[in-house]
Parts: sequence; structure tokens; C-alpha cells
Amino acid sequence: MAEMKARLESAQHILWRILTYDYKAKQTGMQFYENKIRLDVKCSRDMTRVPKEEFEERVNAVIRRSLPVVKKFYKRSEVPKGIDISKVPENVKEIRIVSIGDFDTQPCGNPHVDNTSEIGEYKLLEIKRVGKDTYRFVGAVIKEGESLEGEITGKKLSQKERLQPPKGTRDFLPEEMILRERVFDTVKKVFQRYGYDPFKTPAFENFELFTMKESIGTGEQDKLYMFEDKSNRKLALRFDQTVPLARVVSINPQLPKPFKRFEISRVWRYEEIKRGRYREFWQCDVDIVGTKDMLADAEIIDCAMAVVEELGFKDCFMRINNRNLLSGMMQFAGIPKDKVQDAFRAIDKLDKVGIEGVEKELESRGIKGKQKEKLLKIIGIKFGPKKALAKAKDLIGSNKEGSEGIRELEDLLDNLEAIGRMNIVVDLSMVRGLDYYTSTIFEIMSKDQKIGSLAGGGRYDKMIGAFAGSKEEIPAVGIALGIERIIELLKERDGARNKSVTKVFVIRVNDDVKKDCLKVVQKLRQAGINTQVDLMGRNLRSQLDYANSLGIPYVVVVGKEEVKSRKYKLKDMATGEEKQITLEEIISRIA
Amino acid sequence: MAEMKARLESAQHILWRILTYDYKAKQTGMQFYENKIRLDVKCSRDMTRVPKEEFEERVNAVIRRSLPVVKKFYKRSEVPKGIDISKVPENVKEIRIVSIGDFDTQPCGNPHVDNTSEIGEYKLLEIKRVGKDTYRFVGAVIKEGESLEGEITGKKLSQKERLQPPKGTRDFLPEEMILRERVFDTVKKVFQRYGYDPFKTPAFENFELFTMKESIGTGEQDKLYMFEDKSNRKLALRFDQTVPLARVVSINPQLPKPFKRFEISRVWRYEEIKRGRYREFWQCDVDIVGTKDMLADAEIIDCAMAVVEELGFKDCFMRINNRNLLSGMMQFAGIPKDKVQDAFRAIDKLDKVGIEGVEKELESRGIKGKQKEKLLKIIGIKFGPKKALAKAKDLIGSNKEGSEGIRELEDLLDNLEAIGRMNIVVDLSMVRGLDYYTSTIFEIMSKDQKIGSLAGGGRYDKMIGAFAGSKEEIPAVGIALGIERIIELLKERDGARNKSVTKVFVIRVNDDVKKDCLKVVQKLRQAGINTQVDLMGRNLRSQLDYANSLGIPYVVVVGKEEVKSRKYKLKDMATGEEKQITLEEIISRIA
Repeated sequence: MAEMKARLESAQHILWRILTYDYKAKQTGMQFYENKIRLDVKCSRDMTRVPKEEFEERVNAVIRRSLPVVKKFYKRSEVPKGIDISKVPENVKEIRIVSIGDFDTQPCGNPHVDNTSEIGEYKLLEIKRVGKDTYRFVGAVIKEGESLEGEITGKKLSQKERLQPPKGTRDFLPEEMILRERVFDTVKKVFQRYGYDPFKTPAFENFELFTMKESIGTGEQDKLYMFEDKSNRKLALRFDQTVPLARVVSINPQLPKPFKRFEISRVWRYEEIKRGRYREFWQCDVDIVGTKDMLADAEIIDCAMAVVEELGFKDCFMRINNRNLLSGMMQFAGIPKDKVQDAFRAIDKLDKVGIEGVEKELESRGIKGKQKEKLLKIIGIKFGPKKALAKAKDLIGSNKEGSEGIRELEDLLDNLEAIGRMNIVVDLSMVRGLDYYTSTIFEIMSKDQKIGSLAGGGRYDKMIGAFAGSKEEIPAVGIALGIERIIELLKERDGARNKSVTKVFVIRVNDDVKKDCLKVVQKLRQAGINTQVDLMGRNLRSQLDYANSLGIPYVVVVGKEEVKSRKYKLKDMATGEEKQITLEEIISRIA
Repeated sequence: MAEMKARLESAQHILWRILTYDYKAKQTGMQFYENKIRLDVKCSRDMTRVPKEEFEERVNAVIRRSLPVVKKFYKRSEVPKGIDISKVPENVKEIRIVSIGDFDTQPCGNPHVDNTSEIGEYKLLEIKRVGKDTYRFVGAVIKEGESLEGEITGKKLSQKERLQPPKGTRDFLPEEMILRERVFDTVKKVFQRYGYDPFKTPAFENFELFTMKESIGTGEQDKLYMFEDKSNRKLALRFDQTVPLARVVSINPQLPKPFKRFEISRVWRYEEIKRGRYREFWQCDVDIVGTKDMLADAEIIDCAMAVVEELGFKDCFMRINNRNLLSGMMQFAGIPKDKVQDAFRAIDKLDKVGIEGVEKELESRGIKGKQKEKLLKIIGIKFGPKKALAKAKDLIGSNKEGSEGIRELEDLLDNLEAIGRMNIVVDLSMVRGLDYYTSTIFEIMSKDQKIGSLAGGGRYDKMIGAFAGSKEEIPAVGIALGIERIIELLKERDGARNKSVTKVFVIRVNDDVKKDCLKVVQKLRQAGINTQVDLMGRNLRSQLDYANSLGIPYVVVVGKEEVKSRKYKLKDMATGEEKQITLEEIISRIA
């Protein structure tokens, strides 16, 4: 959870930007207090006449956009152009640059949140005059559950509150949506290439679907958004995409097997909001229902890896393990049943705390002596997949579950090899939380420690049959991509984003050429080029500004001369290059 | 609302299909009762031993798929192959064929619903033996609010009920989703070509957003799905996409204007369920915010027409009118303010009831004599757009609102002409329901009477500013496509649908060639071809059956011979044609 100081500073930074750019104010001072922050500015306009609400609204609008706040150090000579570092003392060699999404980029040494969603709501407590043309702004930030000078949030909403997206949800403006759609389209393309078909279930389900013992855990039920319809049906917004999949499969026995589907949709969980965690978010699942063949597990693994590779994550590998093997391991080590969960929790930490850490963890959970040593021996195995398996076989191949797990894992590795899928790591310490996995489990990891896990899944052969109330197993294997996390990573990686999908803006120099201009527009659109034209009768300068503000890459100018010569000016907005060419040439150049 | 008889017959038809195909039963009799239906069958299996629930579950699973029920007449000689008409008496010349989606197609003369969603829930009241190997099935159908022999739905849900999608919602299996995604993709492509950007808002909003006077009408508030989160925030699933758009624009003043966005998302309305009307459905909106220029209205019209044309609706036209002109018309006719709504309602019916019908309607609403005559005179104007306008100008051009409306309409027509958009009809009788329109209103109509309206919208210059609490107008114009209706029409038009996006199924003849087979699969996928391979170790026949059941158009066979010769058998599943060719040839043929 972000520190109060970081939250205050980030909020004030946003206010500062608004005052500096839109009110031409100049900062003269600032001060942190325990729960407040002060900003003094000089400004020719009488700031006491601007309603406090106006500033609050604007600051909060930025906060609610959930912008990432990125801090980077640059050598003074390498600070990107356009950032004013004139106020940074000369003796500072490494300059820290803070960016709040696309909203502002400034040198700043103060603590900041990582995402504006962590700030909470900005409250402007007062604006007062403290000198000639000098004004003091005192602000605070509050979150749900926090109180501010006796004032508690909730109750009847103000106009301002009413217009915000509800807590934990986001509005996706085009800039954000264009990226999201691009990611979704890529994922969809790869899934379809592997023969998975699109599929969708309702946003809400019967509440009782979630209270079935095969469904989500009871702890998770607290996170449901529950409601009743006007006929008193108890409903709940869906919590994941796996339970609805199990439901649909169980009532549609006619579906050919294996049933291969993907789904990219919203789910809702009432949880504490953290960086990158919302109450409404998208899940992206791909599953195969109806086969126990390890080739299915291999295909899911290959497909998920293909997706992350296609999205440009090149240094990923798949960690795999097997639940039966884990059970065998527990038997081999003689862990009593009531200690198995403890042992799982301890060994799952190997990645983070190392073998000594696991040893301590095991001891603290009462797993000592021979039991402990045997476990450490197995999870300490560190060879390539095949050798690791051979070693595990030596140790635990003699017990039933263990040998079953080893057989499945061998089979899976053979299939992965046949497919030609590399970058596989057998990790006997990986457990994965969900109870319903019955065999293979896996997780896509980046070699980049900061990135960590990108996807996870496994085989769950018992869940769907239990749902259907059937005595037969309906085996299934699937993986969920951490799609919201992937989107966040892509935002950080790719930096500046498109604000529009428009490729060309056609400028009409004046109304005399309107008809000709619209003809050009129609021809560009007919050629499949995303095209805009002025819809406000603006002058040339304003039209250019608009094209610029949306980052539209090309401008075509249609004036009297151009109409006569049938050669139009094409301007590349990135390079500034201009060409006088025919419409056909324009089309072939940018289509 | 579908008749009880049609509902019973459609349900029984589904049961009949299950009994005939899966239990090899033969029908020996049937009988309608007031609220029940009886089916007698001969069957070697003891049907009294099958739990009633099993049949109910299977029938209801089909019902919930919301399959269209299509009835068509064929000359006996032209009945499509594969339909058994041997039991239709010889003297029947025109045979009525009933199709329940992809589920069944049979000759049948009985009444049927138009969509299985109209049936309600099927209840199997009894199964009893009525002769040697002969069994009687008595069933009923019930809907919400209907009672069945004292039994009321609701309360604690049965296992079966729990597994159904909640009332008014649908599961979209791949067959349906593939079509829906294709439609959405087409719409999106055209919108983007016109320079509209993607955009999304949360599934739920603050409940109070919907109680603002600028928001949805009070009558509509009853249709909201309301709930509270765990912090007692009052929320509601969103009702449309326009209110959220207004909200987002009002809190994001930084958005460059004009702001051009589209959105294709779910909305929820608790309403009575009818044919093609659900409680969860998709809306598809495109809007321009921030300009009053009539070129914007023209662009929206052009863009929406381009969408429906791209979807293959070739015989459409745009009906347009203007709210100011309508007001002018009321002034010209001297209609008192308290009668204006009555007059609107009456003239809006011109299309359906003709000029005499409107006359009667006006009279019944107390609009008589000169008032009535003047109105009829105006709405009776029937010329091309320009002439109609000239005539309207003669009559009402002298009053302020009337002349403003005429000016706007002229301006709009000039712009449409400049764009080259044809198929425009000025219809002075069109009103359109929503209060918030302030100027242009329009509606896409098909010349095909059965199809009717495909989209509607208009200019609403006051709503967003009012939302923002701003004194300035934030003008806007937009249109909503009736996307669910369009999808239903496309289903009817295009008939059989793809059950999978997979293009090739690769058959592995046996396990010896598995590795080679998987290499072929990888190469096909790398070439961007949607490919599946057997994941169950099935025999050749079963692999072919699977490919067939999904309607996969091509099969590639990989056996020992093929691997040796590097020429694989490519089978076109539609024509049955087979070729022995290299992988490269296969790729270039089907990519």
C-alpha cells in the first residue's frame, strides 16, 4: 500500500501541472504535513474565485484514469528532449524523471505512488491568498475507510462523485482501448490458429452456482457482487470464467469433444484495490475439455507460449510440475496428511527464499528431521527436465501416485519435444494454489525478475464432471493469461501510445473545396484507410492542431490549387516531410 | 407472445428428436391438451427407468440455446435432400419444413414458436407404460409468472436450474459466437475507417447516475439491475451506452473535440422477454461529441449506412427528419402545448396506418378541424428530399423553430449530397421516441417490410452539458445499430453456420507418425492457418467424424506413406475431392 506521503505528492503533482499549464501559475513553495500537502503559486488570475470543486474534479479525473507513475534516472546529458531541467541544481548528475502516464513528465525527487489509482480521492481543503498574486492550495487524499476531518465518504453522492466510475472500475478512453484491443486481437488470432473457438457466457450467474462445493471456495464467495432481480432471483456477477465453462459444458452434452474454447471477458471481484488490481477486470482463458491425453496439456502450453511470444515477451519459459508427483513426494517424505498443506506452502516458496529459506519454513511448520531432509532432497534436484525426472523416479517412483505423476510428466515432455516447444523447466517445488488441479500444473515465467509470472494453469479432471452431477470424469486442461498484467507491462515497455486509430486527417482549406475534399475522404475510406476530416469548419491551424493532438500520422491538404492540379499535399506528421502527389499515389503510399 | 400450443409443440418436437435419434424410439401418437402435450412412442428400452429429469434437462438445454425456429414451404420435388418426407401424405403438394436451429429439421404442419427462447421451461409431468414397448410422455411448458399445477418457480434452485443461464441471458456457443464476432469485427472496421475510436466504460455505474434528471427516464429506472457493494455503495448495471458516454465526456474535458468514439458492449434491462429480446444484450453505438456542424450528422448517417451495406443489407434507406421542424409544424397547426405529444404519437404512425389512420388517431386524441387538416397537409408531402423541403418551407418557413429546422435539414442534405450518400428519404411524420433529441433525427429502414428498422439516432445537443453541470452546450450526434436484430437477420439469411474457425484438421493415422504429424501441424499454424490435430489418440474414422461434426473444411492425412513421400493427402470435406500434394502446396492452396 502506498505511503501517505507518496499519495499526497502524486496528487499535488497533478494539481501543479494543471495550475502551471492551464492557469500559467508559477510554484513559489510547497510543504508536506502529516495528512495534508501545501502548494504555493504565483498567478495573475484571482484563484480564490475559482471554485475548489473545479480543481478537485480535474485532479480526480486524472487519478481515476489509473495512470502508471514511472520514475527513471537519467544522466543530465541524456534527459529526453522537452523536459525542463533548468531548475535542477547543477551538482545533480543523475536526474530522476517522473512521468504520470501521458499526463505529465517532470524532474522530481519526491516519493510517488506507482499508479494514480493508489492515490485515493483528492480533496482540496482550501485556496487562500497569501500575498500579492500568491495563493496557497492545501489538499488531502482519502480512501475508502479513511476519514478526513470527521468527514466520511459514502452517503448521498455529490454531483462529482456520481460522475466517477464506481470504485475499482475504469473508463477506457481510446488511448487505452486501442492498446487493449490490439492485445486481445493478437491473443485471439493465436488461439484460433491453434483451433480454439470463441465462446461467451452471461455477466451474471445464479448465485447458487457459486455456492456449489465444486465451485469457487467459500472464502472467495465473500468477493461476489450479489443482487436480486425483480423476481427475487438471487444472482451474482461472475467471479471467473472456469465455473461458467463447467456449467455450459455440463448442460450441453452435444458439444463435440474435445471442446476447445477461449474466452476474453470481464469478471468482477470485490477485493481490496492495489496497484494493477481492480474490481472489474478482464480474464483470458483457453481450455480443452474432454481428453486426458497429455498431448492436450502440451498443446495448451505451446499455445500459451506462442501468445506471449507473439506479444513480444521473448525471454519466457514454462515451469511445469505435476500434482500426483507432489502427492508422491509427500508420501515418500512421510508427511502426515494434516501437514501436507503446510509442506506445500513451504516448498512453493523455493523461488523466493531459496533452499535455506524453505528449510526454515518447514521447521517453523513442524516438519523436521527425516521428513524435512527428504523433501529438501527432492526439491533440490536441479537438472534439465529429463534428468530431473530420472532422479525423481529414483526417489519416489516406487509409490503409486508418484509414479503416476512421473509417467504423466514424461509423457508431457515427450509431447512437448515432438511439438518442438523449448524453454521448459520442470520445477518440483511449484505447487500452485487452486485445489481443483489433479495432474499437470504450469506457469509462464519471464527470466526478467521484475516481470515474474504471466500465465498459469493446469489439468483439472474432476471439476466439470462433479458440476454436471455425473459420475464420469469430464477431464479438462487450461491456462489463464494474466492479461491485465500483460497490458500493464506492454504500456511500460512501449511508452507513448496511439490516441486514435485514424491514419489520415484531410484538411479542407476553405468551404469552396468542401465537396472535392469530401470526395478525397470517401476515396481514402473506400481504400480501407482510416480517415477523418474536419467536422467543425475550423481554420487550417486548428485542423492541424487537432490532427496533432490525436497523433494522426498523416495529413492531406485539399485547397483550390490541389483540386485544380489533382495533386494533394501529403504531410508526414512525424518527419514533417511534405509531398505534392496524386490521390492514387497517396493511397499506395499509406495503405 | 407465442401461443401455448406453439410453445408445447416446439418443446415436444425437441423431445421427439431426442427420443427418435438417441433412444431409437418411434412415434405412435400425440395429442394437444389445454396446457399439456402428449407423445406416445414405441421403444425397446424401458423408458420408465430413465429419470424424468434427464429428458427435461436435455430439452431445456436446447430451449435455452435460443434457436430460431424457421418454417418454409417447399414443392415436394424441391425438398432438400436428407429430410425424410416419406410420412407426408402424397396429396400434400407444398410441404412445410420446420427447422429448430441446427438441432433438427423435419416436415411438420403444427404451429411453432419463432425462437426456442419463447417456449419457457419444459416440465415432463410423467412417463408411463401404455402398452408393450409403448410409453406415454406428458409434458408442459411454464414461464415466469405462470404456475403449473400449483407449483411455482423460484425458491431454492434445483441442480438443473442452477446450471441454466439466468433468465433473459444466453450462453454463446462457438457456433453463435463466430457469427457475432464476425459482425462485430465488420462494424468495428467500418467505424474505424470513418475515424471513430474504441472506448469502454464499466459494466456498472453509481445508481444515482441513472436518477439524474438528464439521465434515463423514470419509467426506465424500474428496469435497472440494482445492487450494493460490500461498502454499501448503490450501483446498477448499465442501461445503455449513452449515459456512460455523457459521464465520461463530462469528467474528461481534456479530450480533443470532436470526440469520435464507438462502443460495442453489453447492457442490461429487466424487461419482459420476447422474441429476440433479452435482459442481457449488446448495443453498438457511434457518436460525435463537440460539434454542431451538420457535416457531423451527415457523416454519422453515411457511416451507419456503410456498416449495414458492408453487412450485406443492400436495400436500405435513411429516413430523416428534424425536431425543430416538428416543433414548427405544431406551431403552424396551432396545436396547444399539452397536445403536442398526442399529435407526435399520431403522426408517427403514418408508416403503419396510412394517412386515414393518422386522421382517425388525431381525432381520437382530440385534434380536429383546422389543426388536423394542417398537420395532414404537411405530413402528406411526398416528394424527393429537396422538393419536400421546399414545400415544407412554404408552409412553416415563417415560424422560428420551423425555419431553423428547415435550415438544418437543408444543410444536412447538402452535406449528404457532397458526400455522395444516396437513399435518403425526408419523412416529416417521423418522430422517434427519446426526449433528448434536439435537431436531426434518423432511422435506417430496409425496403423489405419484414426487416423494418435497423438503426436509429439523432442529435442531442443539450444532454451532455446538462450532465456535466455546465452552462455551455456540449453538442452531440450519434446512432445506435440494432445489433442483436441484425445478428438475428443474418442468421436467418445465411442459414447453416460455422461451428469452428478451424480450417484444417490434421489426421494422424497412427502413433508412429505422431512427431511428423505434429511438425505438419506446426508448419500450418506458422503459416497462419487455423489448425487442429487429434488430441485423444482416436482412430481414423473418429478423427474424420470429429472434423465433420465441427464442419472443418479441410482434412490433411499424415500416415507412414505420406511421411516417406512428403506428399500428404488433402481432402476437401465439402466436395470430397482428394489430392496427394506437398505441404507447401497445401499451404498455398488453403491459406
